[in-house]
Amino acid sequence: RKEQCSSACLCDSGSNYFLSLSFRAAGMNGNGPTKLVDPLEDPVPGVGTYEDFNTIDWVREKSKDRDRHREITNKSRQSTVALLHSVSDAFSGWLLMLLVGLMSGALAGGIDIAAHWLTDMKGGVCLIGFWFNHEHCCWTSNETTFQERDRCPQWQSWAELITGTSEGAFAYIVNYLMYIFWALLFSFLAVTLVRAFAPYACGSGIPEIKTILSGFIIRGYLGKWTLIIKTITLVLAVSSGLSLGKEGPLVHVACCCANILCHLFTKYRKNEAKRREVLSAAAAVGVSVAFGAPIGGVLFSLEEVSYYFPLKTLWRSFFAALVAAFTLRSINPFGNSRLVLFYVEFHAPWHLVELAPFILLGIFGGLWGALFIRANIAWCRRRKSTRLGHYPVIEVLVVAALTAVLAFPNSYTRMSGAELISELFNDCSLLDSSQLCGYKQVCNSLADRPAGKGLYTALWQLALALVFKMLITVITFGMKVPSGLFIPSMAIGAIAGRLLGVGMEQLAYYNHDWFIFKGWCSPGADCITPGLYAMVGAAACLGGVTRMTVSLVVIMFELTGGLEYIVPLMAATMTSKWVADAFGREGIYEAHIRLNGYPFLEPKEEFEHSSLTVDVMRPRRSDPALAVLTQEGMTVGEVEALVESTHYSGFPVVVSKESQRLVGFALRRDLLISIDNARKRQEGIVSASQVVFTEHAPSQAPDAPPPLRLRGIMDLSPFTVTDHTPMDITVDIFRKLGLRQCLVTHNGRLLGIITKKDILKHMAQIANRDPDSILFN
Amino acid sequence: RKEQCSSACLCDSGSNYFLSLSFRAAGMNGNGPTKLVDPLEDPVPGVGTYEDFNTIDWVREKSKDRDRHREITNKSRQSTVALLHSVSDAFSGWLLMLLVGLMSGALAGGIDIAAHWLTDMKGGVCLIGFWFNHEHCCWTSNETTFQERDRCPQWQSWAELITGTSEGAFAYIVNYLMYIFWALLFSFLAVTLVRAFAPYACGSGIPEIKTILSGFIIRGYLGKWTLIIKTITLVLAVSSGLSLGKEGPLVHVACCCANILCHLFTKYRKNEAKRREVLSAAAAVGVSVAFGAPIGGVLFSLEEVSYYFPLKTLWRSFFAALVAAFTLRSINPFGNSRLVLFYVEFHAPWHLVELAPFILLGIFGGLWGALFIRANIAWCRRRKSTRLGHYPVIEVLVVAALTAVLAFPNSYTRMSGAELISELFNDCSLLDSSQLCGYKQVCNSLADRPAGKGLYTALWQLALALVFKMLITVITFGMKVPSGLFIPSMAIGAIAGRLLGVGMEQLAYYNHDWFIFKGWCSPGADCITPGLYAMVGAAACLGGVTRMTVSLVVIMFELTGGLEYIVPLMAATMTSKWVADAFGREGIYEAHIRLNGYPFLEPKEEFEHSSLTVDVMRPRRSDPALAVLTQEGMTVGEVEALVESTHYSGFPVVVSKESQRLVGFALRRDLLISIDNARKRQEGIVSASQVVFTEHAPSQAPDAPPPLRLRGIMDLSPFTVTDHTPMDITVDIFRKLGLRQCLVTHNGRLLGIITKKDILKHMAQIANRDPDSILFN
Repeated sequence: RKEQCSSACLCDSGSNYFLSLSFRAAGMNGNGPTKLVDPLEDPVPGVGTYEDFNTIDWVREKSKDRDRHREITNKSRQSTVALLHSVSDAFSGWLLMLLVGLMSGALAGGIDIAAHWLTDMKGGVCLIGFWFNHEHCCWTSNETTFQERDRCPQWQSWAELITGTSEGAFAYIVNYLMYIFWALLFSFLAVTLVRAFAPYACGSGIPEIKTILSGFIIRGYLGKWTLIIKTITLVLAVSSGLSLGKEGPLVHVACCCANILCHLFTKYRKNEAKRREVLSAAAAVGVSVAFGAPIGGVLFSLEEVSYYFPLKTLWRSFFAALVAAFTLRSINPFGNSRLVLFYVEFHAPWHLVELAPFILLGIFGGLWGALFIRANIAWCRRRKSTRLGHYPVIEVLVVAALTAVLAFPNSYTRMSGAELISELFNDCSLLDSSQLCGYKQVCNSLADRPAGKGLYTALWQLALALVFKMLITVITFGMKVPSGLFIPSMAIGAIAGRLLGVGMEQLAYYNHDWFIFKGWCSPGADCITPGLYAMVGAAACLGGVTRMTVSLVVIMFELTGGLEYIVPLMAATMTSKWVADAFGREGIYEAHIRLNGYPFLEPKEEFEHSSLTVDVMRPRRSDPALAVLTQEGMTVGEVEALVESTHYSGFPVVVSKESQRLVGFALRRDLLISIDNARKRQEGIVSASQVVFTEHAPSQAPDAPPPLRLRGIMDLSPFTVTDHTPMDITVDIFRKLGLRQCLVTHNGRLLGIITKKDILKHMAQIANRDPDSILFN
Repeated sequence: RKEQCSSACLCDSGSNYFLSLSFRAAGMNGNGPTKLVDPLEDPVPGVGTYEDFNTIDWVREKSKDRDRHREITNKSRQSTVALLHSVSDAFSGWLLMLLVGLMSGALAGGIDIAAHWLTDMKGGVCLIGFWFNHEHCCWTSNETTFQERDRCPQWQSWAELITGTSEGAFAYIVNYLMYIFWALLFSFLAVTLVRAFAPYACGSGIPEIKTILSGFIIRGYLGKWTLIIKTITLVLAVSSGLSLGKEGPLVHVACCCANILCHLFTKYRKNEAKRREVLSAAAAVGVSVAFGAPIGGVLFSLEEVSYYFPLKTLWRSFFAALVAAFTLRSINPFGNSRLVLFYVEFHAPWHLVELAPFILLGIFGGLWGALFIRANIAWCRRRKSTRLGHYPVIEVLVVAALTAVLAFPNSYTRMSGAELISELFNDCSLLDSSQLCGYKQVCNSLADRPAGKGLYTALWQLALALVFKMLITVITFGMKVPSGLFIPSMAIGAIAGRLLGVGMEQLAYYNHDWFIFKGWCSPGADCITPGLYAMVGAAACLGGVTRMTVSLVVIMFELTGGLEYIVPLMAATMTSKWVADAFGREGIYEAHIRLNGYPFLEPKEEFEHSSLTVDVMRPRRSDPALAVLTQEGMTVGEVEALVESTHYSGFPVVVSKESQRLVGFALRRDLLISIDNARKRQEGIVSASQVVFTEHAPSQAPDAPPPLRLRGIMDLSPFTVTDHTPMDITVDIFRKLGLRQCLVTHNGRLLGIITKKDILKHMAQIANRDPDSILFN
């Protein structure tokens, strides 16, 4: 289990398990459920289930669910018990959503509180109870004034506790060392727990969830161990001060909750397609609790992670996202009755001229996004291919130590990512004592003011923090700890935005009469809001990295709560996406999916090449003919020999080898299970028995062994396309119907087969990439 | 043109054009573009276009667009001009969206202002200029105080103007008569203009737009005449005081704008699929300007009207919706810098106990929705089948007169629907002088107060208004004037909600110590907000009628701007949908689509029956064999005879009649056009010429006429399913790929054909409806 993970997991440790796995998968992937036509025949156990690391067949799964539903509806007319069963079945989806929302909201609240506490632990301890965080500790103190809320005698920094004083170089060094000690301890615990109990718990999880939602199976990826370990290690990783966020992992946590709760309901436990509907909703829940943005969460699920998103799911996702948001709010982890630390309210409007700096921020975000993806992928590739990948614990410890050593001296890197963003988004009020609001006081007004000494210091520190964050995030994302990318990306954008905002503000203050400021920015007016620039910058950088658009704007809209600021956000996000797309159309998640060789058919991108299906299908012209079964005339021994001599996951059944007219499709796994089962249970089945796929058994010699009838496991409605079908249409069919394979015919004769893997390999070839990087089917 | 409309239009005048049209359509519908495989062969003009009242082939249209895009991309590498062309092509979609947003926003602003002015005209006139509305007129007056903003000497009611006094019974009668006069005049103008110039301009337009977006073609439905006439008559109809709203028609107006603007860009003019992407965005724009809710508009388009909604469209819709909202806001039609008349801000929170009345409102909304749909459909059916439908002008005048006579005495029916909703949503402030706030004054507080005489009068009037609105809306919706259903439905719900809200408030005031109020509603507290009840009621009724869910909640959320009230709205909307669905799963728009016999395959509903494709396909067992073409061996004369003796829209091409192996599919229209063209232009093509569909012409006798090669018009990749495919899968394929027809094979031999119409007829049969009600293909 651990070995499987370490190859499939985002944070790969450089081994070559991948290749061996892919061979195993290719040799064994007999997936795809089948429709049993003979109701009298008992289904053989195992028929219609999937192997690990394989793709499900959406059409069959949905058809199976409709059969189940039809049966329940028909029965409900017969008795009251059946009617009640039918009603409870109809409402089980809603109940499940409610549970997912409650559980995810509660977990997110717990994570927030624990992370807050452990983060504060790095700085000091509460004397009246070590389980209080800094803010809580001082709440109980009577000596605290409103202005210095965070200073109280009950809370002592480590230097105070150990040396008795918080002044001087020695105290500073003690605090410094304690900070590094805790960072190392937390990160060591995180990486060790992940490696020991749930290797799947590392990374952000979004690339894997995208792949799973598209129909792939990774057993255990959403299991209970992953949930427990990810929750604990996420708190540790965030508290360790590493440049990572909790937003992506929260999506993974919510999906784990949903997957575990699915086991309570037969409807969802037994059907892979139905379960994926619930997981789509869970992704929305994850973002909803991460940003306090239920609508944004639903749109995130729709835009970014989901593959199959029917309207029913839209409505249920929305419900679950709201339940989660309200659960989290009733826990109130930040004590401000908001769902996030960085909720903001701006008051000043923006002017059309400001669109120019906003678009500049968009360009910065796009460039940073493109650069980050390249650098991070290159680093992850290096981790995979060199010895670096063999020492994940040491890697984490080194990065944590580096981060702690460099971060402590600068107050903007010392604080957590969310706090930093909150401070940068904030508009300066008159009473604000933060360094960022270190303006020269001018007659008690909120208007644009000249920068004072405090602000200049802050600007220098922010510039240094920007460079530091940009470099450290590249090597942090992808390590063997839970790590989200939203907060670091937003922090980088927010710093850049705030710097530009303050710059604009000073420019406007000292140059009121310039033609660009004339008319809207008279002296004494509050024209520029640096906090808004920070917000726009954050959106631009996050957009550049993830290529989210609508959902990102809506999340930001829910943070500010005013339509007013949508236009700046939109201008920046659009520019950022266009600029980043010019350097490569993949977002960070798609890039990691490709790096890991998952079989993911991107639904957003159009297939632009003009090839025909005949160019992509197997067998190629030089290959041996397609391995087929005939509907009668083959013996059990021949079928077994054929199955064993090849590694295909399924075999077309034809009328006869000469005519090559297609009858159906039988899956390898089902064939093997059925023959095995028949040999054990059915009397007289020997190697010489005929295998019959027809409806009526043909007449046989009287002394021949009884035939083995396998029509039940054959799919009688395989999808076909003609050899002349343009590949863009074939790709469209695969995407929209969620196929795993499709048969190719020419003038009514079977010619070949095309699988999802073939398509992905072909696409890789067109893009001049290694087609063998696609590992799974 | 007019005749076509009167049959296709929602507001049908009872004729039997339908049937004749459907025969014409069945005989002539050679639609579906084709892929020309021979690049040397010039495409024959007309090949690949569609007849009116036919369904497009989504797959081919999208494939055509990809071909076009590929060509532009390839060319762009050759020259700078081509590169610029490629860039402008890529940005043309955004430019188009900008234009659609600007134009729709401006039109909506104009409609708002004009309707406001004409509505006030019914009451009186401004002496300083008749073009001022009541509010504008009094703005210029200095004598107006804040409290009596709407009373000033410049504005005179008709009684004042004619009799010189506004007091007394005589003045009342004069005003009454003038009110009826204007109502009749406006409605007469509206219905006459619609009948004379643009019959398609009537109704709400949403059922037709849904059908068009699903791939149907109704020429002229989104044309410039429809736009002009609909804009003018919408103003007239709203001003006439009829029980209708402008929200639905605004969606139609926005779609007309989009369709007209599409003609500026080749990419969208020539491709039906691409144009439908723009129309989806336009539907979002329509709702965005109707409710000032850009996000709600996008979700409305996604949930309610769109069929094919790729992510690219999501992003562009959002952009267009925002542009439109900002355009409308800069016009500021209501003078409150809001986009709608009924923007609200509540301050008091709600309590969990209140969920019970909210759910009650949901039940009311659901019941009303189900009842309204039945009653309205029954009435529309009666209009179609009896002589009533022959006199649309008289019908409108009678209903307008009835509405005016009954509405004038009651101030809540006299005011426009939007004003009524605005008043009902409003929370009573201390200074509020409206009757609805006629509480007994208790020590200047905003807390719950006992109802006074004014409020009791208001309650009686509201109850009467509720009954009146419920009855009159049933016969109004579907008349031959532009008529939206959103405002009347919301008004009904808002009245019911407000009544319940005031009831709850009084109950709480007089029974503070009841166990249900204990603990949260102490004396002197402001526990119940009747305005919130009105809002929840409005959402419930609108939900019951249209079956919208997420989009409705988001629209309401954007009206209030607080996450706080989403839970009540959601509870009511969910209940309302469930209750209404129990009486019939169709919303009002789907019911009207069915009434008109449009070929609309509902994407939301699952196909639950267990039939197989072989049960639905043609030919049936008793029918003559399928009409097919052979790939060689038929003469031009034989092909023409076959085409003329049948009314099918396309013919499968097989290798030979004996083998029945499928080669391709040729459309009737393309066949006729090509043969006609060849006879005129190509030398030696006579009835005895061979028609050849193969790649290489077969050898012929030397004296034979030259063969007619038609491989170019044949679709080489027709979709096929096997006869054993369960119908649920086939329906899924039709829906997801947007097919018009699909061929059915058995063991590799062609067996039959299944079309969208066959599926719809089959579904009608299962639901015990008349299968012949499906009129178009």
